[in-house]
Amino acid sequence: MTEKPVSRYPIPRLEDLPEDIRTRIVAVQEKAGFIPNVFLALAHRPDEFRAFFAYHDALMLRESRVSKAEREMIVVATSSANDCHYCVIAHGAILRIYAKNPFIADQVAVNYRQADITPRQRAMLDFAVKVALHPQQLEEEDFARLRAHGFNDEDIWDIGGIASFFALSNRMAHLIAMRPNEQFYSMGRAC
Amino acid sequence: MTEKPVSRYPIPRLEDLPEDIRTRIVAVQEKAGFIPNVFLALAHRPDEFRAFFAYHDALMLRESRVSKAEREMIVVATSSANDCHYCVIAHGAILRIYAKNPFIADQVAVNYRQADITPRQRAMLDFAVKVALHPQQLEEEDFARLRAHGFNDEDIWDIGGIASFFALSNRMAHLIAMRPNEQFYSMGRAC
Amino acid sequence: MTEKPVSRYPIPRLEDLPEDIRTRIVAVQEKAGFIPNVFLALAHRPDEFRAFFAYHDALMLRESRVSKAEREMIVVATSSANDCHYCVIAHGAILRIYAKNPFIADQVAVNYRQADITPRQRAMLDFAVKVALHPQQLEEEDFARLRAHGFNDEDIWDIGGIASFFALSNRMAHLIAMRPNEQFYSMGRAC
Amino acid sequence: MTEKPVSRYPIPRLEDLPEDIRTRIVAVQEKAGFIPNVFLALAHRPDEFRAFFAYHDALMLRESRVSKAEREMIVVATSSANDCHYCVIAHGAILRIYAKNPFIADQVAVNYRQADITPRQRAMLDFAVKVALHPQQLEEEDFARLRAHGFNDEDIWDIGGIASFFALSNRMAHLIAMRPNEQFYSMGRAC
Amino acid sequence: MTEKPVSRYPIPRLEDLPEDIRTRIVAVQEKAGFIPNVFLALAHRPDEFRAFFAYHDALMLRESRVSKAEREMIVVATSSANDCHYCVIAHGAILRIYAKNPFIADQVAVNYRQADITPRQRAMLDFAVKVALHPQQLEEEDFARLRAHGFNDEDIWDIGGIASFFALSNRMAHLIAMRPNEQFYSMGRAC
Amino acid sequence: MTEKPVSRYPIPRLEDLPEDIRTRIVAVQEKAGFIPNVFLALAHRPDEFRAFFAYHDALMLRESRVSKAEREMIVVATSSANDCHYCVIAHGAILRIYAKNPFIADQVAVNYRQADITPRQRAMLDFAVKVALHPQQLEEEDFARLRAHGFNDEDIWDIGGIASFFALSNRMAHLIAMRPNEQFYSMGRAC
Repeated sequence: MTEKPVSRYPIPRLEDLPEDIRTRIVAVQEKAGFIPNVFLALAHRPDEFRAFFAYHDALMLRESRVSKAEREMIVVATSSANDCHYCVIAHGAILRIYAKNPFIADQVAVNYRQADITPRQRAMLDFAVKVALHPQQLEEEDFARLRAHGFNDEDIWDIGGIASFFALSNRMAHLIAMRPNEQFYSMGRAC
Repeated sequence: MTEKPVSRYPIPRLEDLPEDIRTRIVAVQEKAGFIPNVFLALAHRPDEFRAFFAYHDALMLRESRVSKAEREMIVVATSSANDCHYCVIAHGAILRIYAKNPFIADQVAVNYRQADITPRQRAMLDFAVKVALHPQQLEEEDFARLRAHGFNDEDIWDIGGIASFFALSNRMAHLIAMRPNEQFYSMGRAC
Repeated sequence: MTEKPVSRYPIPRLEDLPEDIRTRIVAVQEKAGFIPNVFLALAHRPDEFRAFFAYHDALMLRESRVSKAEREMIVVATSSANDCHYCVIAHGAILRIYAKNPFIADQVAVNYRQADITPRQRAMLDFAVKVALHPQQLEEEDFARLRAHGFNDEDIWDIGGIASFFALSNRMAHLIAMRPNEQFYSMGRAC
Repeated sequence: MTEKPVSRYPIPRLEDLPEDIRTRIVAVQEKAGFIPNVFLALAHRPDEFRAFFAYHDALMLRESRVSKAEREMIVVATSSANDCHYCVIAHGAILRIYAKNPFIADQVAVNYRQADITPRQRAMLDFAVKVALHPQQLEEEDFARLRAHGFNDEDIWDIGGIASFFALSNRMAHLIAMRPNEQFYSMGRAC
Repeated sequence: MTEKPVSRYPIPRLEDLPEDIRTRIVAVQEKAGFIPNVFLALAHRPDEFRAFFAYHDALMLRESRVSKAEREMIVVATSSANDCHYCVIAHGAILRIYAKNPFIADQVAVNYRQADITPRQRAMLDFAVKVALHPQQLEEEDFARLRAHGFNDEDIWDIGGIASFFALSNRMAHLIAMRPNEQFYSMGRAC
Repeated sequence: MTEKPVSRYPIPRLEDLPEDIRTRIVAVQEKAGFIPNVFLALAHRPDEFRAFFAYHDALMLRESRVSKAEREMIVVATSSANDCHYCVIAHGAILRIYAKNPFIADQVAVNYRQADITPRQRAMLDFAVKVALHPQQLEEEDFARLRAHGFNDEDIWDIGGIASFFALSNRMAHLIAMRPNEQFYSMGRAC
């Protein structure tokens, strides 16, 4: 058993980071009780760090009719389609917490088609996984299918935007071989 | 949220089952504290049930230089390659217990290439996943690679045989839409 | 031209085999006039041999509304999808004999979509090949399509079960590089 | 069982064909004892017929260090990669006759990697199937591998040219749903 | 930056070519102002050259209800599906000229689903690209879809025939690493 | 011929945009002579707009040993792998200008393996396209191959980061069906 490092790239020391980045990381640490590795690993490049989390927040924290749990479902389903170690484990934890459901993250990660989700959520994940894997095949009928489930065009931008952002995020995680913190594995489980 | 049934097919009552099958199921229940759904779901067809578990035991319980934890790694890695809900969750639990490692199952399920495993185990899983996904491309060099890691021909039969058996098992689970018991999700986690 | 052996693994001598296995093999030999290589090759591991043929018989010999010729069509179509030398040749021979049709096996092996089969058989093979290649994508509508052709749920288990069992069988044949007996190539041909 | 027609398109009557085409067809009929369906099916368009067979002959009849049996192996392997009913059956027959081997065509069609062929022929078929399926990935090292087996650049043009021509031929056969004559199924078999 | 040769194979000198081939090439040169490389590269083998261009002309110059611009769309879409450098660049130029549209070739090459074409042309290209990439999956419903857009069976042969011919042409271009003339890049652009 | 709109979503009027976004757009317009559609289309969501261009600039404008022309090659090659209409056309124009080469963009878009680039650039694009299409298969040997061409770890982050960012960018372009400005088609061509 060989334990692998957090990232292929150097991890900066907190005290060497620009003020705004250190402040953000400390705030996360106070809230979560630990520093998720993505903050340390991406801080290697401050400008990309700032843009990455600004984009993340713009999609994941905005007011939306797609619930926060549903947005995390999108992250887990598309990150699993990309076999992304960090994102499946870390966002699986967040999904369990938001959904108050200890099973849902593993179900969505293994095969969202068999998960205990509503038909509306199933349609949402079909669309998101298509954006993740075959975006060039998006057609009007894909939009029509979501509208038939009550999603409007802004909801669809949210769904597609999250799938697009995690296409970037998953690839950065693979590039730097980013590892999830051990805490994520058990968070939100009923045990 | 719609909770789905254990199987697309009827689940027999314990008292209606042939004696040998009921005995086996009761023994499992006493050991595990619950009846894993695969026993109930496959008992719908007693002859196939008997053959299925005889095959399972022949591979998973035999004396082998491939450890029991490693055999479960093969199950999890190939079942994940097949997106098999039941097998990833249930055998993930068994893997955590055998390996005494609360992280390993999720790591192997999401992307075994990034898991905390030895180079020998990595070669083993590369071979097993090739058997699962592209068996027609097996060549002498695949065998040579395993031998270079110290596996002998009987070990290789074990590895390939388990990947082959779970090719069957995963497909049956998909056919009948078999669901894992809730207990499996948290077994062997350090929480 | 290099003639390849029957199996990558040792072939046991008949007299060294356990009684029950030798008896089964001798019975086959008396009926067929030769010993199909699968019996010799798998006898290398008696426990797996017994489970393998018990499973085979449970599916291939049971009373079913899926005819024996149709079951062999499933074997040929899915084994061809897996490029399995042994299974396509050996079960192609059996299919020709059961269907009393010298052309059907080659047609199903090359491209079952163009074979001289009924629409009901076409639907059956579409389902079986999906189980073989993309089992994670099985949906209720796949079942509905078979039901529209008059198949009931037990028929569907037969179809999916055979495709699942030969997912195992094809992989074992690839693992051990099993070769078909020369007799199979010409059996059941009108020449 | 529904018997399908020779072609999706009309089959011209011999007496309605242009003289040169009728002459060619009659000559084939005299030699083979029957008219292979490809001649009747493609005669629907005389200009394309003439170009098709001119191209065929330029590759398949020319002097070459790639033997006629080897050229037919290329046809069978690549046509099988394209699931082409007509070409696998018809050229399988020709391959059996040229190679004086009743098994070789089925072996190459099911999985040429497991066929009884020489390492040189294996390299030839690897190249041909790459031309058939992934021509955009041809690299200098593919040429080097063939040269290491003694093929020169003109041999390689023959191999790649045949794979390219049958890329056309297979697609035309699929387009018109061309069926092989029954005679081809049994020609050259030792039965 | 390494400039690559016109072909992996020798380019014959014009004066060494057979009379009919030289005549054709000179005629093209007079009309176009330069000799497209395909003529020089394929002249390495005169018999194949003659058959190739006879086939090309039979499909591309015949009277047809599929317009010449539409035929070039088929060439560009299918050649792009095959990543064929020569055919996308050279036929892109011809398409721009026939369609009198400086944008259409790049649109069709990058993603014909997003090009400014009619629904009828979209259906035509869907069919052509299916012939190029998955010809074994052609079904009656593919024909029905084209007929619903007003195409008759001869039109469909044209569409499928062109896609089939360029399956050959693209593969030959990859085999010999054929490069387009620099003139093609800018022909028909509004600049 | 139906001309399609710039985006599936509403295009804001310049005067309705937040000051910082309008300022950026006006600056681009003054430099380029027109407003590239990506600025108008993404301005529909100001927060995502700001993060998108901050990320873009962090990667595309930073000091790097990967030249600006090479960075645009990465954009064109990966966007072509994703069939992205907007990015291939718009960044193809920028690549032609930076590389002072009217042919390079079309070559890289159709098949970068056949483009007139150095072996170092070939290795760079192999890596970038792997990040775009199969990021889960990145291994140490992929990094070793780049290092053998003189790339250091920061260069590799640049290469992988750009491929990752355009994985997002391409998907957003597909989601909103973004169209390139007509100006891009001819910019930097020698005509």
